[in-house]
Amino acid sequence: MTYTDHTTEEIEILLLDSVKAFRAYGKMPLKKRAEFMRAIAREIEALGDILLQTAAEETNLTEPRLRNERGRTIFQLISYAEACERGDWLEIKIDTGLPERNPPRQDIRKMLVPIGPVAVFGASNFPFAYSTAGGDTACAFAAGCSVIVKAHPAHAQTSELVASAVLKAAKDTNMPDGIFAHVYGAGTEVGEALVKHPLVKAVGFTGSLAGGRQLFDWASQRKEPIPVFAEMSSINPVFLLPEKLKQSADEIARLYASSITLGVGQFCTNPGLLLGIESEGLDTFVAALGEEIRQTSPGNMLHMGIFKNYVERRANALSQEEVTTVAVAEGDLQLNQGAPTIATVSGEAFLNNPVLHMEVFGPYSLVVRCKDLTEMTQIANHIEGQLTATLMATEADISYHEELVDAIRSICGRFILNSVPTGVEVCQSMHHGGPYPATTDSRFTSVGADGIKRFARPVAYQNWSNDQLPQELKNENTLGIWRTVNDKLSKDPIK
Amino acid sequence: MTYTDHTTEEIEILLLDSVKAFRAYGKMPLKKRAEFMRAIAREIEALGDILLQTAAEETNLTEPRLRNERGRTIFQLISYAEACERGDWLEIKIDTGLPERNPPRQDIRKMLVPIGPVAVFGASNFPFAYSTAGGDTACAFAAGCSVIVKAHPAHAQTSELVASAVLKAAKDTNMPDGIFAHVYGAGTEVGEALVKHPLVKAVGFTGSLAGGRQLFDWASQRKEPIPVFAEMSSINPVFLLPEKLKQSADEIARLYASSITLGVGQFCTNPGLLLGIESEGLDTFVAALGEEIRQTSPGNMLHMGIFKNYVERRANALSQEEVTTVAVAEGDLQLNQGAPTIATVSGEAFLNNPVLHMEVFGPYSLVVRCKDLTEMTQIANHIEGQLTATLMATEADISYHEELVDAIRSICGRFILNSVPTGVEVCQSMHHGGPYPATTDSRFTSVGADGIKRFARPVAYQNWSNDQLPQELKNENTLGIWRTVNDKLSKDPIK
Repeated sequence: MTYTDHTTEEIEILLLDSVKAFRAYGKMPLKKRAEFMRAIAREIEALGDILLQTAAEETNLTEPRLRNERGRTIFQLISYAEACERGDWLEIKIDTGLPERNPPRQDIRKMLVPIGPVAVFGASNFPFAYSTAGGDTACAFAAGCSVIVKAHPAHAQTSELVASAVLKAAKDTNMPDGIFAHVYGAGTEVGEALVKHPLVKAVGFTGSLAGGRQLFDWASQRKEPIPVFAEMSSINPVFLLPEKLKQSADEIARLYASSITLGVGQFCTNPGLLLGIESEGLDTFVAALGEEIRQTSPGNMLHMGIFKNYVERRANALSQEEVTTVAVAEGDLQLNQGAPTIATVSGEAFLNNPVLHMEVFGPYSLVVRCKDLTEMTQIANHIEGQLTATLMATEADISYHEELVDAIRSICGRFILNSVPTGVEVCQSMHHGGPYPATTDSRFTSVGADGIKRFARPVAYQNWSNDQLPQELKNENTLGIWRTVNDKLSKDPIK
Repeated sequence: MTYTDHTTEEIEILLLDSVKAFRAYGKMPLKKRAEFMRAIAREIEALGDILLQTAAEETNLTEPRLRNERGRTIFQLISYAEACERGDWLEIKIDTGLPERNPPRQDIRKMLVPIGPVAVFGASNFPFAYSTAGGDTACAFAAGCSVIVKAHPAHAQTSELVASAVLKAAKDTNMPDGIFAHVYGAGTEVGEALVKHPLVKAVGFTGSLAGGRQLFDWASQRKEPIPVFAEMSSINPVFLLPEKLKQSADEIARLYASSITLGVGQFCTNPGLLLGIESEGLDTFVAALGEEIRQTSPGNMLHMGIFKNYVERRANALSQEEVTTVAVAEGDLQLNQGAPTIATVSGEAFLNNPVLHMEVFGPYSLVVRCKDLTEMTQIANHIEGQLTATLMATEADISYHEELVDAIRSICGRFILNSVPTGVEVCQSMHHGGPYPATTDSRFTSVGADGIKRFARPVAYQNWSNDQLPQELKNENTLGIWRTVNDKLSKDPIK
């Protein structure tokens, strides 16, 4: 099935509806927003197997993987709905009036309010969890914003099905018309029209560095710049420290072979860079990892574009000076199948060749052989921002390498010890973000309920009487929200 | 006294020191940061009258006003130091491991960490409180960042004195060399070099729209874009609702004459736009306001540049079609003195003329006579983002004008009822920010301890053992910080 691109005129009409819906929806009680989000979760589930089958056809993802991802999507909607109702994210700060002070202090009460209509661009590798009704959309609805999704062209039909579920949920819970719109655009025109439109107030995006940067540039060049939350590019470096490698090279190799090949390497947290210091332990590790990788089977990639990209970028990386191929999966290869691949290079060659720092999206990882700790630290200080960085280290490794550990922390959003970066838990403590180019705004997360705050801004009410304040700010605190009152956190009513 | 501009080579050296200092300082306990900040407050006070005299000579601000501002600066340093130690701003979220869950959940603990060296551009109208050791610098130090201040050319000697106090405090509290640097630049080159330098990770600015937008554009065009917190342009509209105006036109006129002329109108929260609906009440108000303004005395402006700007922009506004001058202060006018001025225009003419929406920095305010409520609402929906908006209204006015009230809230960062926008309280509930062009990032405040969060980003630690975690994230919670543990806010240790 093919879909016709929306025209700028159609987008104009949709946005006028969206801003009207935003004005009504943004004022609705948190409870109503949560009901709407739970209804979306139910409607997605109610789509049943047809949703999984459609997505499987469009994305080549396996049915168990998609079933799992659908579960994650539903969990996100429900858990962000809970967070929305709990209201901690409103960051309420209240300073009550001090009429007898000289000069008198007026009563001031601050809370987050929704930012406006949000444009969401879904991810090709997560047709449910980070697409149409995925994390960005769920966060925007929780924040009180209306949403316009541009369907990902690689799974437009799946997107259309999910959109129908959102629209049904909106109708069933009496949401204003225009709270959700779904547009098609195979080229860049529709995206450009959305990001540049004065009525759009924020953008959520998951995808490539080139795509995310383009949206960011458009948004920054507007007369009124708007925030873009683009989750883009990360090679998720893994630092293998000497003692740890000496103790468990084989075990780490098995762990990482499985992380590198998980989902045919098509995760933003795929470990694409493994760094060790020249040693017997590193030799053992590389040999064992090569052995594991040779025995894996190539898997179907999301679509031909991603496959082609993988083949080309891998070839480009492997053709760089001093890069040696360690292992390629040996299974029979069919068209569209990405073969897991490991290569290796010296620390010096890596440091001097920016091509090797670029993401090869797929089951590929480069082992960098640093000549010593100084070189490894130099690399940690040199590479770009990352979603995650991982340290494979014993306690002694950590205490001996403080400078290295600090350098690694400074480039990442999530800092993992003795585990793998793949697998992103949906919980409040999660930070799925990181310094550029991992994202365009390192201060915000796209996974976990804290992502709601991306689509809100503070407003302080000064000198309003209790009757006139929004529910959340009234003395009574009937919603039982944690609030900072005169510098003290409390759920108590104000007397 | 004149100061030579710093060269790019000198800036390069200062930044290398700054990043080295950042690495050490960012790891220091919150208590040490707070000690440093309190020492700065003491050293500023210890500068004594020479500081006030120097500032008075450079800025034309009166000594009582400067004494007051010095008090505010010291209060900011001390209260942000307290907030820093309290640690709530770290937004700690902890989800403890669930090893028996399928799949197991690893322990994840998130906190804010400092973002990196911060470049601060001070304000001409606040030589202490929003300059060298002002709000931006205090917030950056609390967040754990090193700071480079570009001295404001209009009060470079004052800046130099304050910088000496910061450096003395740094020495006395054993801070790393380079934690604070002070540079001069009369032209734009130094600012450009700072904002474009890869080692600078955030920018704080208070000043004009043109200046702030330029910094934002440079920062957005970097290979690695960085956040710019520019507080720029606001005309702080005041909406005079019919019943309120009928009841207290004279009283409101007196209140606003005093707010418009406070500090010769040189506050970012100066009310430059007053909107009413054609009525007897509005006529009374305009007549009374005109009378008050005629009786005020012109005052010395900050410097000749600001004065010249005021005279030119005011003349430009007054020369616009349909604009009528209501009153100009009658006192004898000397060079560099800004004469308080009130003009008036119809709602229709205002709506169609963007020139009238621009800030005239100084004691000038435009009264817009709307023909009806619809036109007033149209204007509220039409004007640009503002630091503040004020509603002068009775309870009945508010309940009758819901759409208007919503529209006003959507354009401002602080929403005031029956008071004046001038006077910005330093407290947690304050939001000094607002949609563009009031600021470049409506999600953050430049006044109040929440401003600390501008200079920090989250990092999630996954699977670390208690011994290896930073103090703030350890089970024991010896610092007594409020933390969200498994979705519940608590100060308790984790068992």
